[in-house]
Amino acid sequence: MTMENGEIPENANEHCPGTQSESAGKSDACEGCPNQEACATAPKGPDPDLVVIAERMATVKHKILVLSGKGGVGKSTFSAQLSFALAAMDFQVGLLDVDICGPSIPKMLGLEGQEIHQSNLGWSPVYVDSNLGVMSIGFMLPDPDEAVIWRGPRKNGLIKNFLKEVYWNELDFLVVDSPPGTSDEHISIVQCLGATGIDGAIIVTTPQQVSLIDVRKEINFCKKVGVKVLGVVENMSGLSQPVMDFKFMRTTETGEHIDVSEWVREYFREKAPELQDLIACSEVFDSSSGGAEKMCREMGVPFLGKVPLDPQLCKAAEEGRSCFIDQKCGVSAPALKIIIEKLIENNGFARMLLNSA
Amino acid sequence: MTMENGEIPENANEHCPGTQSESAGKSDACEGCPNQEACATAPKGPDPDLVVIAERMATVKHKILVLSGKGGVGKSTFSAQLSFALAAMDFQVGLLDVDICGPSIPKMLGLEGQEIHQSNLGWSPVYVDSNLGVMSIGFMLPDPDEAVIWRGPRKNGLIKNFLKEVYWNELDFLVVDSPPGTSDEHISIVQCLGATGIDGAIIVTTPQQVSLIDVRKEINFCKKVGVKVLGVVENMSGLSQPVMDFKFMRTTETGEHIDVSEWVREYFREKAPELQDLIACSEVFDSSSGGAEKMCREMGVPFLGKVPLDPQLCKAAEEGRSCFIDQKCGVSAPALKIIIEKLIENNGFARMLLNSA
Repeated sequence: MTMENGEIPENANEHCPGTQSESAGKSDACEGCPNQEACATAPKGPDPDLVVIAERMATVKHKILVLSGKGGVGKSTFSAQLSFALAAMDFQVGLLDVDICGPSIPKMLGLEGQEIHQSNLGWSPVYVDSNLGVMSIGFMLPDPDEAVIWRGPRKNGLIKNFLKEVYWNELDFLVVDSPPGTSDEHISIVQCLGATGIDGAIIVTTPQQVSLIDVRKEINFCKKVGVKVLGVVENMSGLSQPVMDFKFMRTTETGEHIDVSEWVREYFREKAPELQDLIACSEVFDSSSGGAEKMCREMGVPFLGKVPLDPQLCKAAEEGRSCFIDQKCGVSAPALKIIIEKLIENNGFARMLLNSA
Repeated sequence: MTMENGEIPENANEHCPGTQSESAGKSDACEGCPNQEACATAPKGPDPDLVVIAERMATVKHKILVLSGKGGVGKSTFSAQLSFALAAMDFQVGLLDVDICGPSIPKMLGLEGQEIHQSNLGWSPVYVDSNLGVMSIGFMLPDPDEAVIWRGPRKNGLIKNFLKEVYWNELDFLVVDSPPGTSDEHISIVQCLGATGIDGAIIVTTPQQVSLIDVRKEINFCKKVGVKVLGVVENMSGLSQPVMDFKFMRTTETGEHIDVSEWVREYFREKAPELQDLIACSEVFDSSSGGAEKMCREMGVPFLGKVPLDPQLCKAAEEGRSCFIDQKCGVSAPALKIIIEKLIENNGFARMLLNSA
C-alpha cells in the first residue's frame, strides 16, 4: 500500500501502474485494459498546473496543513482559531478549506452566506478582516443544505482550482484545513503544494485510543509524503467548566431524572459558598493509555499541548468568533494560546515577524 | 452538482459525460480528450459485479447504512453498539466497515489484531460471537499504524470486493458503517447495494449547528440516491455524569489550577450528603438552535432520540465491549436501548423476528 502514481481508473486491470506512471499503458499489467491506449498515448511529465500553482504560491511565506486521522476532533475549530490568532498578531493570513463534502470553515469564521467574487486577478477570498481571507466550497453552494456528491477526481479538480485561481496576495501564512483521512484531498494538496514548500502539518486528535490509532496513520502519511509534522494537538482533553454552570439532576425512585439545578445553586450559595467558585473536570474520553503526549514521544514528533473540551469554545466556533477576544473562553483560550506560541517559537515564525516588521 | 455518471478521469475534458455514460467518448465534450477512444470502446451496460453482489446479498434480509455528515460524531460507536444490541436480541448480524482510511470498527468490537480467513465460500468475517460477524480493512493491514493512502478508485475497488467476496451466510441485518461525507465510499455502496434493496440509513449527528449543516447534506444525499432515512440519532447530547465522578479544581490567585477533588468529595460526604448522589449535566455543544430534533421536523425525517456524552460509553467503545451487558453505562445505555427499540418498531423488524421464529 503505497502512494499512488497518479490516478487509477476504476475499470483498470489489477496492478495498474497508475495513469501518470512512465509505464502507463505499457506494463504487463496493462494488457487488455480498456484504458491501455489512452494511458500509453496521454502526455506524461510535469503537470502544467503545478507551474501555475507555484506562481500563485510565490507570495505565500508559510504553508501549514491542519490534518487529523479521525473526523470531529475539532480540526476545523483549531484551524479557525489558529487563523484568528495569527491574524490578531498582525500576520497576513489565508485559510483554505479543502473539505469538499463537509465544509465547516465558513460558519466557524462567521462568513455563512458569503460568496466568492472574481476579478481579473483571480477568485477573491472572503475576508473576515483585511488580513484574514478565507476560501471554501461553502461559498460556492447555491443551497447550503445541498449534498456535494462527488467522487475523488472532481474533488481533486476543485482543490487544484483553489490553488490555481485564488488570489491571496501577500500572505505570511496559508492555513489549509483538510477533511479527515489520507485520501484524495490529502494526496492532491501534497502533490500540488509539495514543490512550493510546505512548512509542515499540525495534527489534531482527541485522547482516545480510537483517535490515536488514526493519528499514527496520519503521522505515517506525513512521513511517507515528506511533510514535516509541526506537532500534535490533543483536543477535547476532558471537560472543564465552572461548577455553577452545570445542570444538576436527581434520580427518583422510579428512575426518572428531575432537574434540581436551582435548588443546588441555592444550596451552594447558602450552605457551601466555598464550593461555588470551583471548576469541575471530567475526562470524557478515556485517556488511560497516555493520550497523545505519550504517542508523540513514541513516534518522535512534537507534542504541542492539550485543549480542554470547553462549551464556551464550542459556542465561539458556532458563532464564528475568535475565542481570544473576550474573557468567555476562560478554560480553552489560554491553552490554545500556549499551543500557538509554542508553534511559532518552535518554527522560528516569530523571527520572521521581526524581520518583516 | 449531481450524482456522477460513473467515473470522471482527472485528465478528462470539461463537461465529461462520465465513463459509464451511454455517450462516453461520443459527446461533443469528448473531442480531443485523451480518454476518448477508451471511453467510446469500453463495454457499457450493467456492471457484471452487481450480479455477483446480488447473489451474495440474497441471504441478507436487511441492509442498514450508518451515515454522518461530519466525522467524530460517534457513528462507529453507534454502529458497534447497534450491532451488539441486535446480536443480543438473537438476530444474525453482520457489520461491514467501509471506512478505508480510518477503520475504528475492529477496536470497537474488541477484535484488534484479528485477521480475515479465506475459504472456498469466500472471505470469512471475524466473529465476535456466532451471530455477530465483522469485516473491515483493519483486519487486512500488516501494521495498524500504516496509512492507507488511497484515492477513490482503489477505495471503491475494495468496497466492491467486500460486497462480492465476503461470505456472510444467513443474516438478519447487515449494518454498514461508513466514513463521513458524501463521496466515493457512499456512492459506491449505494450503487453496489441499491439493486439488492437497502432498507435505509441511520444518520448520526451531534447537536451543534456545524454538525447539523452537514447532516442536512447527508439527508439530501439520501433523498437524491433514493435511500430512505430510517432516522437521525443525536449523539454527545450533553455530558451527564455522577457528581462524585468529577475532578474539582480551584483557581489560585496567580491563575494556577490546583486539584482539590479529595477535599470536595470529603466535603460532600461530611457536610452536604444530599448532593453526592446527584448527576451533573453540561450541554457541552451548543444546542440553542433546537438541535437534531427540530431539524428532523423541518426536513420530514424521523428523530430517533438523544444519547448523552457518557464517559462510560466512551470507555466501552475503547475496550470493544457492548454497553448493554453490565450496569456501567447507566446514562447512555438506556438511551441507546430506546433508540434501537424505536428503530425496530418503526420498521417492522420485530415482526420479522416473530415470523422467522
